[in-house]
Amino acid sequence: MPVDTILWENDNLIIIDQTLLPEKLVKKKLDTVEDVWEAIKKLRVRGAPAIGVTAAFGIVVALKSIEITDRKIFDAEFKKISDYLASSRPTAVNLFWALDRMAKVLENNPDLSVAKIIVKLTSEAVAIMNEDKTVCRQIGKFGSRLLPSKCTVLTHCNAGGLATADYGTALGVIYSAYESGKEIKVYADETRPLLQGSRLTAWELMHSGIEVTLICDNMAAKVMSEGKIDVVVVGADRIAANGDTANKIGTYMAALCAKYHNIPFYVAAPSSTFDLSLESGKKIPIEERAAEEITCGFGKRTAPEGIKVYSPAFDVTPAELITAYITEKGVIKADQIIDKLK
Amino acid sequence: MPVDTILWENDNLIIIDQTLLPEKLVKKKLDTVEDVWEAIKKLRVRGAPAIGVTAAFGIVVALKSIEITDRKIFDAEFKKISDYLASSRPTAVNLFWALDRMAKVLENNPDLSVAKIIVKLTSEAVAIMNEDKTVCRQIGKFGSRLLPSKCTVLTHCNAGGLATADYGTALGVIYSAYESGKEIKVYADETRPLLQGSRLTAWELMHSGIEVTLICDNMAAKVMSEGKIDVVVVGADRIAANGDTANKIGTYMAALCAKYHNIPFYVAAPSSTFDLSLESGKKIPIEERAAEEITCGFGKRTAPEGIKVYSPAFDVTPAELITAYITEKGVIKADQIIDKLK
Repeated sequence: MPVDTILWENDNLIIIDQTLLPEKLVKKKLDTVEDVWEAIKKLRVRGAPAIGVTAAFGIVVALKSIEITDRKIFDAEFKKISDYLASSRPTAVNLFWALDRMAKVLENNPDLSVAKIIVKLTSEAVAIMNEDKTVCRQIGKFGSRLLPSKCTVLTHCNAGGLATADYGTALGVIYSAYESGKEIKVYADETRPLLQGSRLTAWELMHSGIEVTLICDNMAAKVMSEGKIDVVVVGADRIAANGDTANKIGTYMAALCAKYHNIPFYVAAPSSTFDLSLESGKKIPIEERAAEEITCGFGKRTAPEGIKVYSPAFDVTPAELITAYITEKGVIKADQIIDKLK
Repeated sequence: MPVDTILWENDNLIIIDQTLLPEKLVKKKLDTVEDVWEAIKKLRVRGAPAIGVTAAFGIVVALKSIEITDRKIFDAEFKKISDYLASSRPTAVNLFWALDRMAKVLENNPDLSVAKIIVKLTSEAVAIMNEDKTVCRQIGKFGSRLLPSKCTVLTHCNAGGLATADYGTALGVIYSAYESGKEIKVYADETRPLLQGSRLTAWELMHSGIEVTLICDNMAAKVMSEGKIDVVVVGADRIAANGDTANKIGTYMAALCAKYHNIPFYVAAPSSTFDLSLESGKKIPIEERAAEEITCGFGKRTAPEGIKVYSPAFDVTPAELITAYITEKGVIKADQIIDKLK
């Protein structure tokens, strides 16, 4: 289901504030680069591809009202803004990838005036968004072929329309299979602590007419042992050259369970999520989140005051647990990553 | 930490209302058998051993003000009350085991007057409670020997003082090791959906001065992959003759993760938790809980209205994933269950 996760309208950046879903569908205009940083940090906009697109527009938002005319000063200012946006969240590589693409516009056009470079940067952000849409469709098309004509898919977190500029990576596979006439049901992990599964994935799928059953993350093994799951498909925040995959915390456990129950486990992600500079997943920086997201989730305190908390936002699933990667360039195995994506 | 999970004082049954923890420590007098049924059903009192003890006292609460003098009518009434209490929760076998023990008092004393049999039933309930205390201490003693002198234990749900009449099974092992001078740290799974880990286990351990770190259930594999966990110890609600173990949902996933990371996985439970009438875990009835426990946890709706939910309260960990069982009769392997516990 394509939703207007990120809109660029009349030079304005507008996002759906995902922290308010599923209760309220509220659009939020991000007027300053601080607004953009905050929206990423607070997960108003989240999902690796969506973070990349939003950051690209964040550059434009920051620069569009700038009063500098000197390119050198402008380029330094660009760098400052880009570094600031890069500091919002550390794990999803698409953020850095998108900012790099924006930086390349400067590099490739050293002689262009500030006014003209801003136009080019805007075009680049729009291109990143449009490419993301095309990429989602390609991932959907390739992934759909992997699903039996009648099957039940487990997914974790939200790698759907709300995580991208279009209809998602993992959920893109599901939407594409569904649209092609396959009989698809979904089990959605609620995804603690921030419940992107119950708040976002369940919401998206319900609105698309796809049958979805919500479970707690810790129920996946039981559901698998009952023979209810045919395939697992998840998204990714960063994939190392060897195929180790950082994704929302809990993905690793879902993969372990899939392995034990002989269920194929697919990672659906654009090539921009692959970070070939990292040999393995060990080097992927993992963001830690605030204790309150666990102890005071959704308004009520549910743990003792002063309790020590560990809250990594992501984990790394070893490549050996991943059946294949569904990218816009086709379905590849871990040992093909370097060849196919370099 | 022994807490007054269940008190029998001046012929009154008093429990800690665990649904209000950790915010409030409130004791609740259960005046009628309906109160007892509701307290078990709503998890005001929970944990397999504690449910057994409470059900035994539930019989006494129901019968103490009875006006029947005819034994035959009394015995029929007993049966009705027992069946009613048995209907509160289906999985923990200790409930049925305790009610059976109470029934045996009637069987073994067919000629006793109603007044005298009520005295005997009261004594039996007190005996069940006191035995549970002894059993916890024995489990603690045997389990403690399995823990290295310095180690970090992961546990799931609450198998502590709040789950028994004394200081718990899984947590009994931890308390015993701690009291014997071992350097013990704990990671506690929060245990969705009802958060017994964050509300009860974290609370118990903090109050005992044991260092505890709270994590979401889906973080266990990551914590293990970081080498932070030396041993996993959990409780049980019912253990089949082959060692398959029903315990709080999520236990199975923790066991799978432990296996993958070569971490010993122990189940601590009294012999009353073993159900030798069941060959394997396949036959253990698994309670399903209401959708609202997942979709509206703790007052705020976090999933779309009308979403389909699957909420098994327990899962069954296959015996092959369990290193050993810590019982009051010693530490045994799966293939010793029938010999040692028959």
